[in-house]
Amino acid sequence: MNKGFTSVISALIFTTLSVNVSTAFAQSDNFSAKQLTQVAEIKQQALKSDLAWNLVESLTTEVGPRMPGTPGDEAAVSWAIAKFKAMGFDKVWTEPATFPKWIRYSESAAIVSPAPQAMHITALGNSISTPKNGIEAEVIEFKNLAELESGPDNIAKGKIVFINYRMDRDRDGNGYGPAVQARSRGAVVAAQKGAVGYVMRSVSTAYHRFAHTGGSHYKEGVTKIVASAISNADADQLQRLVALGKPVTININVQAKSMGEGTSHNVIAEFTGSEFPKQHVLIGGHLDSWDLGTGALDDGAGVALTMAAAKLATTYGKPKRSIRVVLFAAEEFGLWGAKAYVKANAQGINNIVAAAESDFGADKIWAFDSNVHAKALPLVAEIAAMLKSLNIEYTAKNSARGGPDLIPFRPFNIPAFGLSQDGTDYFDYHHTADDTLDKIDPEKLRQNVAAYAVFTYMTANAKTRIIGK
Amino acid sequence: MNKGFTSVISALIFTTLSVNVSTAFAQSDNFSAKQLTQVAEIKQQALKSDLAWNLVESLTTEVGPRMPGTPGDEAAVSWAIAKFKAMGFDKVWTEPATFPKWIRYSESAAIVSPAPQAMHITALGNSISTPKNGIEAEVIEFKNLAELESGPDNIAKGKIVFINYRMDRDRDGNGYGPAVQARSRGAVVAAQKGAVGYVMRSVSTAYHRFAHTGGSHYKEGVTKIVASAISNADADQLQRLVALGKPVTININVQAKSMGEGTSHNVIAEFTGSEFPKQHVLIGGHLDSWDLGTGALDDGAGVALTMAAAKLATTYGKPKRSIRVVLFAAEEFGLWGAKAYVKANAQGINNIVAAAESDFGADKIWAFDSNVHAKALPLVAEIAAMLKSLNIEYTAKNSARGGPDLIPFRPFNIPAFGLSQDGTDYFDYHHTADDTLDKIDPEKLRQNVAAYAVFTYMTANAKTRIIGK
Repeated sequence: MNKGFTSVISALIFTTLSVNVSTAFAQSDNFSAKQLTQVAEIKQQALKSDLAWNLVESLTTEVGPRMPGTPGDEAAVSWAIAKFKAMGFDKVWTEPATFPKWIRYSESAAIVSPAPQAMHITALGNSISTPKNGIEAEVIEFKNLAELESGPDNIAKGKIVFINYRMDRDRDGNGYGPAVQARSRGAVVAAQKGAVGYVMRSVSTAYHRFAHTGGSHYKEGVTKIVASAISNADADQLQRLVALGKPVTININVQAKSMGEGTSHNVIAEFTGSEFPKQHVLIGGHLDSWDLGTGALDDGAGVALTMAAAKLATTYGKPKRSIRVVLFAAEEFGLWGAKAYVKANAQGINNIVAAAESDFGADKIWAFDSNVHAKALPLVAEIAAMLKSLNIEYTAKNSARGGPDLIPFRPFNIPAFGLSQDGTDYFDYHHTADDTLDKIDPEKLRQNVAAYAVFTYMTANAKTRIIGK
Repeated sequence: MNKGFTSVISALIFTTLSVNVSTAFAQSDNFSAKQLTQVAEIKQQALKSDLAWNLVESLTTEVGPRMPGTPGDEAAVSWAIAKFKAMGFDKVWTEPATFPKWIRYSESAAIVSPAPQAMHITALGNSISTPKNGIEAEVIEFKNLAELESGPDNIAKGKIVFINYRMDRDRDGNGYGPAVQARSRGAVVAAQKGAVGYVMRSVSTAYHRFAHTGGSHYKEGVTKIVASAISNADADQLQRLVALGKPVTININVQAKSMGEGTSHNVIAEFTGSEFPKQHVLIGGHLDSWDLGTGALDDGAGVALTMAAAKLATTYGKPKRSIRVVLFAAEEFGLWGAKAYVKANAQGINNIVAAAESDFGADKIWAFDSNVHAKALPLVAEIAAMLKSLNIEYTAKNSARGGPDLIPFRPFNIPAFGLSQDGTDYFDYHHTADDTLDKIDPEKLRQNVAAYAVFTYMTANAKTRIIGK
């Protein structure tokens, strides 16, 4: 099918939505007229459905925060099993995943001098504790991690390093990568330069006074120092005080603990395919969250919308291929659930005909793309045409990544897809206490569900089996 | 001067701003052509001035939070004295004010069951402490204070009362009054109904997860119970959990203390009038703040913009009447500085020719009004005409209140004025940790300064002496 023809179909779908268009649909290479009618109707049903909202409301309210290895994480696993069963999935099962467990007890910080005042701080994941009364030292500020790295060996001796890099706001989240370096390994570099503590401006675009947590790492042979982040407003304040030119002393008090190996579970559910049950579309999100908020945007939304999309995609009966929803465990601690999944399912992993993870909030999906063998591109174009009325652009670069939990799948060249949410505001909430249910717009969530339902139906039911590059 | 003529002047000011318009200005009953040129130029200078911004930046950074009776409060008094002197005010002095001192040590809360998770809570001012491990009880929800009041005597026996009233967003802040009742005396009513603890939805329009503090009171003979408020997001969560129909148990832990009588100081400064030094225009804000944020909007902005306006109003020399800036103490604990001021200055209080307090943030001033004797209304209209190019509407009801610290002045019928900021977003930040410098827009702050400078210049230099009703 060429693109001109796709546009014609798309226009028809847009203007007339009923069985009348079946003659137009009938010319698809991949779908019967009936199927095209069904997917168009599923799309409309999804735009009116409260299913995903009800799921994310339930998860964030009745479970709440669910950091790997906590009682909330266990409750989330039970929640997911129960919901999948209640929704009528054919199979529901769990697979274990282990990870280095870490618990946050408390955290606080203050400017001691010259202007005593509290700061809003959070420990980075994996941080050690400070002594009981905190660690108190003069601050030395660097504009970014590179400036610290290029400084002399003892530049931060006896001081608390403050990295003051502000992340850029960006629809695709491109500001995150450069900023997250300082979170991931800032405490190691600071310790190598003689620092006794580490604090950074949050990896956050938030205008509000929330500190952003997230994974951090220590390095064998380098002294472990406390790793923390302050809110943008507090970073502004610290910057202004440092700029006054007198020594600025702060106190950081973090009580946290590494607890050895923890175990959680990927929760997996399937609508079994009628023709090719082993072949499956894999969609999902990650079930765990950080502990500060209730994990609504990260990633309650992804969990809920993929569960709902799978259900809606089977409105008119069993799919040709299986539809599998995977709710990954311990993503926030380093993709541990995804790694375990790939290990446990390596044998059958090439049965994946399409994979997409939703883990970028719940703003409207604005772009669609694939990462598949060229043979599958006509089908991809047909899916893109069906998504067009949802204001989703087909970017057609065929280089989609598919979501963070699909990183461990990459060596297998599975057919990955991207349904890209607008991430302009995502980092206002991401990994903060402010990631709560009220940040999800039900209308936008429905658009997400509609897109995933269309994608899932079409990849599961197409005549063509999609293969990877 | 009639209103038609005022509009003509206003139009001239708007279109041509230079000495050329002096012939038009010359027809004012209250000002010479030279004076009208000066005030028009002061208005333009204010719109380019960084003075207020520099002051509020300094106050919120170098002092920070300044709750009455804390070291921050003392630092603020020293800050104000030093700044007034550096700005060249003719007289700078302080007057003591006493108040019931109260200190917050710590606060936390959690849902214990059915879904364990932290809540963002703050103690209301004056709250007692809970036992060391907090108080734990089942929640009983009421939609508002009236519903609780109308309930049977023992309706809340052994429970924690949760008042779930959401304040309305409003340009004039009219949503605050109805909501604040539950803050002021909710804990008393709850205790009368048998409750062991009290928590309310914050008096806040915030979309973000900040709890709102503020004054509360106990009543002689009624058991004191902990008084607290949770953020809107947490109130939503509690509401959803209660709606599930099973008992919801929460724990509230507040450590706070009433410390007897505290003392702070009103800081007062004056540019002395050349003709009528006793007569004075009184402008100002309150120097204290709550402890959670840095008191940028409440009321660092009011402090800074009135200090700056007084300075700008004297750009072309001494005023005819004195210009007095009063930075009131301990407003947040109950207008204690204002009460002390009125008591100490009762004798000369009728020397006030115009009074206005800025204590409603730093969004643009949209309305101007007076509360004066009818004889002064032509002058008021002339001031209003000069404010018009700042997009300030003359509401002409002659019933202005003048700001909270002017409430104790009311028995004296002083000439009060209102320069009303747009308060639509004010209660997103008010009394929360999120009230920080970044919430002030420097451009809007300049418009505030311009309006106050015009008002101050014109009331201080007019031929007519304004008197009250």
